[in-house]
Amino acid sequence: MSRFLSNLYSSLKEYVPGEQPQDKKYVKLNTNESPFPPSPGVIEAVTDEKIEKLCLYCDPESKLLKQKLAENYSLEPKNVFVANGSDDILNFAFMAFARENGAAFPDISYGFYPVFADLYNVNAEIIPLEDDFSIDAEKYVDCGKMVVIANPNAPTGKVLTREEIEKIIASNPGNVVLIDEAYVDFGGESVVDLVKKYDNLLVVGTFSKSRSMAGARLGFAFANEEIIKDLEKIKYSTNPYNINSLTQLMGIKALEEQEYYDKNCKIIAENREFTVAELQKIGFTVIPSKANFIFAKHKNISGERIYLKLKDKGVLVRHFTSERIKDHNRITIGTKEQMEILIEKLIEIIKEEEV
Amino acid sequence: MSRFLSNLYSSLKEYVPGEQPQDKKYVKLNTNESPFPPSPGVIEAVTDEKIEKLCLYCDPESKLLKQKLAENYSLEPKNVFVANGSDDILNFAFMAFARENGAAFPDISYGFYPVFADLYNVNAEIIPLEDDFSIDAEKYVDCGKMVVIANPNAPTGKVLTREEIEKIIASNPGNVVLIDEAYVDFGGESVVDLVKKYDNLLVVGTFSKSRSMAGARLGFAFANEEIIKDLEKIKYSTNPYNINSLTQLMGIKALEEQEYYDKNCKIIAENREFTVAELQKIGFTVIPSKANFIFAKHKNISGERIYLKLKDKGVLVRHFTSERIKDHNRITIGTKEQMEILIEKLIEIIKEEEV
Repeated sequence: MSRFLSNLYSSLKEYVPGEQPQDKKYVKLNTNESPFPPSPGVIEAVTDEKIEKLCLYCDPESKLLKQKLAENYSLEPKNVFVANGSDDILNFAFMAFARENGAAFPDISYGFYPVFADLYNVNAEIIPLEDDFSIDAEKYVDCGKMVVIANPNAPTGKVLTREEIEKIIASNPGNVVLIDEAYVDFGGESVVDLVKKYDNLLVVGTFSKSRSMAGARLGFAFANEEIIKDLEKIKYSTNPYNINSLTQLMGIKALEEQEYYDKNCKIIAENREFTVAELQKIGFTVIPSKANFIFAKHKNISGERIYLKLKDKGVLVRHFTSERIKDHNRITIGTKEQMEILIEKLIEIIKEEEV
Repeated sequence: MSRFLSNLYSSLKEYVPGEQPQDKKYVKLNTNESPFPPSPGVIEAVTDEKIEKLCLYCDPESKLLKQKLAENYSLEPKNVFVANGSDDILNFAFMAFARENGAAFPDISYGFYPVFADLYNVNAEIIPLEDDFSIDAEKYVDCGKMVVIANPNAPTGKVLTREEIEKIIASNPGNVVLIDEAYVDFGGESVVDLVKKYDNLLVVGTFSKSRSMAGARLGFAFANEEIIKDLEKIKYSTNPYNINSLTQLMGIKALEEQEYYDKNCKIIAENREFTVAELQKIGFTVIPSKANFIFAKHKNISGERIYLKLKDKGVLVRHFTSERIKDHNRITIGTKEQMEILIEKLIEIIKEEEV
C-alpha cells in the first residue's frame, strides 16, 4: 500500500478470483465456465472487417444489444442495462443503492458481495444459511436494506422458488431487491418477468456461464426504467465505453442462437446428475444443485486435501477456507469426459488416503 | 432517478461522451479516434480458435500483456497496470488517491476529471488555463493535492515540457501526480521514464488513440510498485476480469508492430499541419497542437453554428458549450481525404454565411 491510498481502503480485503493458471493444462472445474465454445454464429460474426473497425469507439449506449436482450426476455430496451460482466453491475448496485440503508445477503454466497459492501462502507447484515445450506426467505422479508440473493445460490447450487422470491420483493418496497441469476439457465426459475410488476426488483445476468463468453466480458440486468437510469448514471460517471464492440456483436449473435445454449445447459444438467450419482457411490455428500456446479464433501477426507491432491493430478476445483464450508469443494460441471476424469482421480485419491 | 439512489449522487452530472451515431455515414472527426485500422498482426491474431476459447475467463492478471508493455517502455511488469480503457484507470485514481487531499486540474481539460471528482466527493481545485490556453506549471507546484494534467492537453492540444512536468512531480512528494498521456504519441514528450525516479508519478496511456483500438477497450498505466498495488486492490474489489481475452491478445500484437503505429502518427502529424494551414487561409485561428486533434475558432462564425452546419453536411466535430471555449471546435485529424472534405465543407459554410 502506498502512502497515497485513501484511509477508506486501509482495511479493504479485495476479492480473490479462482485460479486462472496459464502454465499447465488442467481439467478446469474451478470457475464455473462452460466447457462448450460460443455458438457458430458468434464465431462467424468476428470478421476481419469488424476487427478493422475497432479503431472506432464502441456504441456506449449498446443500443442493438439492449434491443435484442429486451426482445428475448419480453421487456423494453428501457428496462435493460448492460456492462463489462455482471461484477460490473453488482459493483454499481452496491455503490448506488445500499449506502444509506445497507445490504442484506447470506453468509455463504458469492464471495464478492462482502467486498463490495466493504468497499463502499455499506452496513452489511450477513444472514446465516440454515443448517442444510438453504436460504430461509422469511429472514429477508421487510428487512429495510437492499437484499442481494444469488438464485441459484453459489457455491451451494440451492434455489429459492419464485414464490419465495416474490415475497421478499413485495415486502421490501423501500429497497432494491437484487436477484443474481448468473446460474439460472441450468435449472433455476427466473423472476425476470416480475420486473413488470415490481419497481424495486433488479435481476442480474451474465454471458459468462451458460453462454460461453466468460472471456468476452458481458453482463446484463433488467429492472424498472428508473433503476436502469441510475445504473446508467453511474456507468457514465465511471467508464461509459465499458463494452468492447466485438463483445456487443457476439452478445447479439449468441441471443440469436439460444437453442444451441439451451442444448448445452441440458447436457450440463445431465452431466451434473451423473456426477452426483458417482460421487455418492464413493462417499461424498452432495448438496442438491440447480447450477453448473456442485458442492460436495467427503466423509473421511478434508476439503483442502481433496483440492490439493486433485490439483496435483491436473484437476482444478474451487476450495474455500471459511470455517463453515472448508470441508466442501465446489466442482464445476464440464463435459462427460471431464467428469469421468474427475471421478477417476477421486477414486485414486481415496485409495491413496486409505493406505 | 429512482427513490433508491443514494443521496450522494443526487446532484451528480455524468460525463457526456462525443456522439457515436450508428445511423448515418459521417466523416467522423469528433472523438479523436485513429482513421487507420489496427495493424495486420492484430487482425490475424483473432483466430476462430481464440474466439472458441472465450468460454474461459480472461487472465485477470494480464501477465503477458504487462510483460510486453514493460518491455516496450523499459520498465518492470510490477510498474504496469492495465484496465478496460484509460477512463477505468482515471476512475480508480480519483477513487484511491484524491479523497483526503483533493485534486487539482485545469478548467479546460478532459471533461471527465470534474465528473470523477464529483462522484467521489473530492475537493477539486480547478485552475484556469492562461489566456493563450496554456497551462502554467508553476500553479501546480507544491499544491498539496493530487495533480491531474493531460499532456498534450485536450481539447487544446497544447503541451508542457518534460522539465515543467518534472518540477510539478518533484514539488508534490505527498501526492500522486497523474499525467494523462492519451495523446502523447502524436508529438508530445513522455515522462514514463520518470517513474523510476519519482514514487508519486502515475502515467496513464491508452490503446484508443494512436493504436487504433478504441472499440477494444484497453488502457495502461505506469507507476511505482506501491501505486500499482493500490490500483490492483481497487480493481480486485470492483471488477477483476475487466479486460476481454481478445483485447489482451490484440494489445500484445499491437505492441509488437509499433513501427506501423509510428508511421500512422507521422501521417496524422503531417495531416494536422496541412489542416492548420488550410484553416488559417479561411479565417480560422488554430491553437498549436501536438495531438491528433486541433482546436479552432473562426473570426466570424460561432463555434456552435459551424458544428451544426458541418453535421448537416455529414462531418462530425466536437463542440463544447462551456463559456470559455464555446467559440471553438475540436477537430480530430483523420486521413488526408477526410481533412480535404472538412475544408471543402467549411468553405461552403463560410460562403453560405456571407450571403
